[in-house]
Amino acid sequence: MRPALLIIDMINRFDFDGGPALARHAATASSSIQVMRATFHAHDWPVLFVNDNFMDWNSEFSDLVTSCRQLPGAPGQIASALEPQPSDYYVLKPRHSAFLCTTLPAILADLGAKSLVIVGVATDSCVLASVQDAHMRGYTLHVPRDAVAAKSPERSRRALALMEDAMQIDTRPAKTLVRSLLAT
Amino acid sequence: MRPALLIIDMINRFDFDGGPALARHAATASSSIQVMRATFHAHDWPVLFVNDNFMDWNSEFSDLVTSCRQLPGAPGQIASALEPQPSDYYVLKPRHSAFLCTTLPAILADLGAKSLVIVGVATDSCVLASVQDAHMRGYTLHVPRDAVAAKSPERSRRALALMEDAMQIDTRPAKTLVRSLLAT
Amino acid sequence: MRPALLIIDMINRFDFDGGPALARHAATASSSIQVMRATFHAHDWPVLFVNDNFMDWNSEFSDLVTSCRQLPGAPGQIASALEPQPSDYYVLKPRHSAFLCTTLPAILADLGAKSLVIVGVATDSCVLASVQDAHMRGYTLHVPRDAVAAKSPERSRRALALMEDAMQIDTRPAKTLVRSLLAT
Amino acid sequence: MRPALLIIDMINRFDFDGGPALARHAATASSSIQVMRATFHAHDWPVLFVNDNFMDWNSEFSDLVTSCRQLPGAPGQIASALEPQPSDYYVLKPRHSAFLCTTLPAILADLGAKSLVIVGVATDSCVLASVQDAHMRGYTLHVPRDAVAAKSPERSRRALALMEDAMQIDTRPAKTLVRSLLAT
Repeated sequence: MRPALLIIDMINRFDFDGGPALARHAATASSSIQVMRATFHAHDWPVLFVNDNFMDWNSEFSDLVTSCRQLPGAPGQIASALEPQPSDYYVLKPRHSAFLCTTLPAILADLGAKSLVIVGVATDSCVLASVQDAHMRGYTLHVPRDAVAAKSPERSRRALALMEDAMQIDTRPAKTLVRSLLAT
Repeated sequence: MRPALLIIDMINRFDFDGGPALARHAATASSSIQVMRATFHAHDWPVLFVNDNFMDWNSEFSDLVTSCRQLPGAPGQIASALEPQPSDYYVLKPRHSAFLCTTLPAILADLGAKSLVIVGVATDSCVLASVQDAHMRGYTLHVPRDAVAAKSPERSRRALALMEDAMQIDTRPAKTLVRSLLAT
Repeated sequence: MRPALLIIDMINRFDFDGGPALARHAATASSSIQVMRATFHAHDWPVLFVNDNFMDWNSEFSDLVTSCRQLPGAPGQIASALEPQPSDYYVLKPRHSAFLCTTLPAILADLGAKSLVIVGVATDSCVLASVQDAHMRGYTLHVPRDAVAAKSPERSRRALALMEDAMQIDTRPAKTLVRSLLAT
Repeated sequence: MRPALLIIDMINRFDFDGGPALARHAATASSSIQVMRATFHAHDWPVLFVNDNFMDWNSEFSDLVTSCRQLPGAPGQIASALEPQPSDYYVLKPRHSAFLCTTLPAILADLGAKSLVIVGVATDSCVLASVQDAHMRGYTLHVPRDAVAAKSPERSRRALALMEDAMQIDTRPAKTLVRSLLAT
């Protein structure tokens, strides 16, 4: 039973209110996301970029990746570090949750995935909405605390504590989680 | 444009882990919910009980109300104080969110409701999941802070602070909200 | 792997345009539905009444059953013949499909049902919409041709032929299907 | 109130059982679809390609268009004649219906579309499933009979007759519909 990795909204211009602060914290998280993704690639487990299109319905994901990679600072660094590979999946997410008005339920059914590792931004917004929806649909969930970010570390910690208390989500750091996934 | 009041999981045996503590805090919130509901009844605005059936698929809501009213302590007091009236609507909620696998989207469309007041339990579980889903669907939202409850006041405050910061939810107390709704 | 029986919109006042003709054909189908339901009861397989509430959001299903049983002619005969038993499930269906804005996906997941027998009215409206949704969700489907009805036998046959050609649905008569289900 | 045009599954290899026959009939329909689309482009009304990805989750729509255009015969002719323009929208459809596990509900909400013209293939499969879902969601619907196709003309006519009788769908030919849309 192989898990699936959902990378939420990391390909991002971060050009909204509070975006620069979020980008700085996301850049830190992107190191842990790279570690996690390398493990998934090594084991041929599915990696899915679940990403907002920022209401630009007419362009494709590859256009967004290209334009973000050319941005200065954290947004460009993140898009380059996490550049989607040909084997990675892409899911267009028009609302906060990865499950609402998206192809994700169909892809996960086709993949037979029952266990999800959810990473990305923002911990208390799109990540939380996706975790909540995945929890209600019965998935086993992992949200490594160093692979998610919010507009401040306090907001990320608050959302993680809520996930732990209200949904018993596993929030162990990425490296610990990788060891645990490889041991099972 | 009349609002709709969603009362989440207040008709409840509270017989699960942490249930008695939740019931005590819910009993306090039920006073504010009564104030809110009286205002809705007075103006003929719709009131909806959105309630878990606790996997008892074969019984009706009226059976659950009757059995809860007979319980000793806080669960019985709450069910009696909030006893559904004939004009109140009932929505069976099999998952955490009021919107998932329920008739709620159809009822709200028929009622033409665009603004929701969401109250009940637990602030960081079914209330949060419902608020998140309503937010993604574009409803104007109010979650009066004294009309919701969690297993501890800290958990309720944490979830409310998250709703304010991440979704700009109005969490003013019930009496303040009532004055505001009546002024518009 | 036990199947589930979905009985669509048979508890019905049939008081709409074309309703009396539909009621006459539904009365004929109700004999086959009784045979089918008796088999399900005998094997403790789940039976679900998936029924419109005709926009009367404030009443319960038992109220509708009681009021339909008192109707003269075919509507009353059908409601009496198919009177829901305490072990039968009830799903409120506000739209045409049994799956849209209903608890059905949650109940079927809890029951572990993978195979559905769908009966009731009308073959080319709510039955077809439910069959289409079930087909897209991967259920194995049976629609016994003598246990469904439309406003005319021609309309029922046309919808059944479409289901066979476009979705490869099994439409063998109820008694043949019962034998087949018991043999597996 | 501008309408939206949904073009279903016309960018297609038609390499499945019955595909060549479907492609021949689709090539005939593509002339009417071109007329319809030209009207939409002229008035800046939205055009959406709602298209299966044939389980090839890793490629983009532009890849499918390019590969279909190079096919010999009807599939290549259709993909060339209907080549998506930069202003056209694209919706990935993993199931039969244009509404299930897709971004379509979000796009249509953003566009404010209340009226849909649905064209493409197959009349008795993905077109019917999409029409059914749109009908249940309250859209005004038009399915021009010469702009849809099935594996045989009889199957297309049967599905259209069912849509007319059971859902009162307007199935007037494309040119008649264009005149009617321009007159309102």
